[in-house]
Amino acid sequence: MKATSTSSDLSNLPVSEMAESLVGSEIIKLAGEIKARIAQGESIYNLTIGDFNPEIFPIPEELLEGILAKYRAQHTNYPAANGMESLRVAVSDFMRKRQGLSYSPDEILIAGGARPLIYAAYQALVDPEDIVVFPVPSWNNNHYTHLSRGKARLIMTGPETHFMPNAELLKDALDGARMLALCSPLNPTGTVFSKEQLSGICELVLNINTARLAKNEKPLYLLFDQIYWQLTHGDTQHFDPVSLLPELRPFTIYIDGISKAFAATGVRVGWAMGPEKIMNKMKSILGHVGAWSPKAEQLACAEYLEMDDAVDTYLADIKTRVMNRLNGFYQGFQDLKRDGYPVDAIAPQAAIYLTAQLHLVGMKTQEGGILEDVAAVTDYVLREAGLAIVPFYAFGAERSSTWYRISVGTAQESDAHEVCSRLRTALEKLS
Amino acid sequence: MKATSTSSDLSNLPVSEMAESLVGSEIIKLAGEIKARIAQGESIYNLTIGDFNPEIFPIPEELLEGILAKYRAQHTNYPAANGMESLRVAVSDFMRKRQGLSYSPDEILIAGGARPLIYAAYQALVDPEDIVVFPVPSWNNNHYTHLSRGKARLIMTGPETHFMPNAELLKDALDGARMLALCSPLNPTGTVFSKEQLSGICELVLNINTARLAKNEKPLYLLFDQIYWQLTHGDTQHFDPVSLLPELRPFTIYIDGISKAFAATGVRVGWAMGPEKIMNKMKSILGHVGAWSPKAEQLACAEYLEMDDAVDTYLADIKTRVMNRLNGFYQGFQDLKRDGYPVDAIAPQAAIYLTAQLHLVGMKTQEGGILEDVAAVTDYVLREAGLAIVPFYAFGAERSSTWYRISVGTAQESDAHEVCSRLRTALEKLS
Repeated sequence: MKATSTSSDLSNLPVSEMAESLVGSEIIKLAGEIKARIAQGESIYNLTIGDFNPEIFPIPEELLEGILAKYRAQHTNYPAANGMESLRVAVSDFMRKRQGLSYSPDEILIAGGARPLIYAAYQALVDPEDIVVFPVPSWNNNHYTHLSRGKARLIMTGPETHFMPNAELLKDALDGARMLALCSPLNPTGTVFSKEQLSGICELVLNINTARLAKNEKPLYLLFDQIYWQLTHGDTQHFDPVSLLPELRPFTIYIDGISKAFAATGVRVGWAMGPEKIMNKMKSILGHVGAWSPKAEQLACAEYLEMDDAVDTYLADIKTRVMNRLNGFYQGFQDLKRDGYPVDAIAPQAAIYLTAQLHLVGMKTQEGGILEDVAAVTDYVLREAGLAIVPFYAFGAERSSTWYRISVGTAQESDAHEVCSRLRTALEKLS
Repeated sequence: MKATSTSSDLSNLPVSEMAESLVGSEIIKLAGEIKARIAQGESIYNLTIGDFNPEIFPIPEELLEGILAKYRAQHTNYPAANGMESLRVAVSDFMRKRQGLSYSPDEILIAGGARPLIYAAYQALVDPEDIVVFPVPSWNNNHYTHLSRGKARLIMTGPETHFMPNAELLKDALDGARMLALCSPLNPTGTVFSKEQLSGICELVLNINTARLAKNEKPLYLLFDQIYWQLTHGDTQHFDPVSLLPELRPFTIYIDGISKAFAATGVRVGWAMGPEKIMNKMKSILGHVGAWSPKAEQLACAEYLEMDDAVDTYLADIKTRVMNRLNGFYQGFQDLKRDGYPVDAIAPQAAIYLTAQLHLVGMKTQEGGILEDVAAVTDYVLREAGLAIVPFYAFGAERSSTWYRISVGTAQESDAHEVCSRLRTALEKLS
């Protein structure tokens, strides 16, 4: 190497423009700080992770036993490129029985989790410079758009619509767009589309596509991530585009899987449903990417999804236990609010998330410092209450948003009481 | 939907330009025909698949038991984004002990197989219109280049260099290129770089980069896929770039994993090694793609790779059994050649592949037909000998190439004799 190249040059050589400009995850930054504090011996309630503690939320026993059996039966070679047939048949049955959606095994694609399918849908549908519309807060659509070299058009939402978009918010944004990415139940909010909200959007998308096809223009595709749909709580109902408006079928791609409803994030089984041509393109892309679900897990999942009683029992149990935790935090925040503290929360509807508000910017700490921005508030509750939660700006909301995601997948039922009690002490110290 | 849109329009709506122009796999086309013939009751020796039959080549017993134990211990939630630390430590140890390569755990990235890492390396390093150089025959670099919207610059190789490139073949091709993608042992040929071949290329790459860095230009990266390196046979030695020329380290990305050496294609554990910045970019990309290796499999693999004796025993066994099969086919082809038939084969060196030649274009069948091209030859041996093998044009060679890949991962040791006997009968019918 020539003397002109220093060793620091060589450790920072330029990569692709897309990779060079990747935005780091705000959640991962926060995770680093939490880890450091825990290493220093602090007691932290880490409610930042959209994952489960397997000691609290294990995967279904029948699924676990199935995986062991399939491994013992030596299912260790390549799975089929579009997923094992038995699993595509089981998913087809499962979705028909449980959601009333009718997709044939050839309209279903299996991958190693839901993320690869979201990624493949973007790659299959979005060209560089194409416009992708999504509401914020949103989980990772900014990153998927960047990876596709598309252009993101963000729609801000607020508590008045439960942080969900509606036709009114979207109508001017969809002009010339290639894809609309929706998610319900929504990560990070744990809220869902009402029937009216989603119906309005569906009508809008259909009208746009009717007009576009009449002019021989490319359609607007609807990516619908419903990975949390089985985790609805209380009276909450899950609605989806094709059930509401069957004419949307040619334009809609569903994203789903076992990761959340069956607490199986590390098992890596997800599926997409949609038009056969699009599933085939996504299959080809994912075949090269190699983001396959391991074979034994696929075969075990196929058998598990057909065990109606076991699935019913598991879902009833996990929903009850998740709901108890969400309700515990919700009640704790409502108690604080009732007692005059500037906090709030939206009643839990679904998933493993509670949307909570800390309206503390501008307040003064006992040391005399001012909580100057949301990052300072996040840091304060972490330091003073040992409470680690993710501000909505990490999901694309404005930096000034005072809302947070509380994830209960790693929480014990008693944590809500303890966390809110610590939070009360921390709030008392502010003026 | 308007009357102007017919239902056939709606099943063939336009997708992204990249997806619309994806080239179908020649191997998958062939697989469809083979499947149809087997369904009709024909007896076919299907030697087309770069995979293992687990009944003949099971994964190591200790690895299997480890996976079961990790699942029983409920390792079912998200793995770390760059892979479980224990596995990165184990890979670091493994590569140092067995290949003499020194990469720290932070310079190692885990994914769900080797493919995701190849894909991520392309995405991290190649921008649209960037030039990627690779020799043909080659496994899938054409597809990876297309997925990156890069431009492929193909270097044709022939039997005189064992289908491997050398500096002489590459020197004019690397001008302005962003990446050189090499693979040794090579899929599809089962041949390896000689020390001289690879050293010459390494010197060339270093000279190019020395000149580029002096002019502040982007470097030429070297992607080195060595997934088959542990399956070398007889006296064959595996050489790699950084061991030969340590100054190449800042420009080199290794691709490796357990899929081939441990017959674990369906278990989905692979790793890359390279500069920390590039590993971090690939980690971010793969985190969004979600092409993670399942957690239980990672933890089990970490423990297995540290079991030196078990690994030694397994590798000695699989290598012997693969080599016996390769030698059986090689000997069979040499016998046919000695008896005057227009066939040939290159002595096996590594991997699970034999490079064989069928020089039959222009010959006349008993029915009076002429074998007009390589596709007709492929079809003839499939029909007449029940022998299914992949012509090199499926790996990017010229359509007129008379060379084929024979894969032995699903073959019994006795198959070579039977296949060559059937082939002899089929050859006898030609004039």
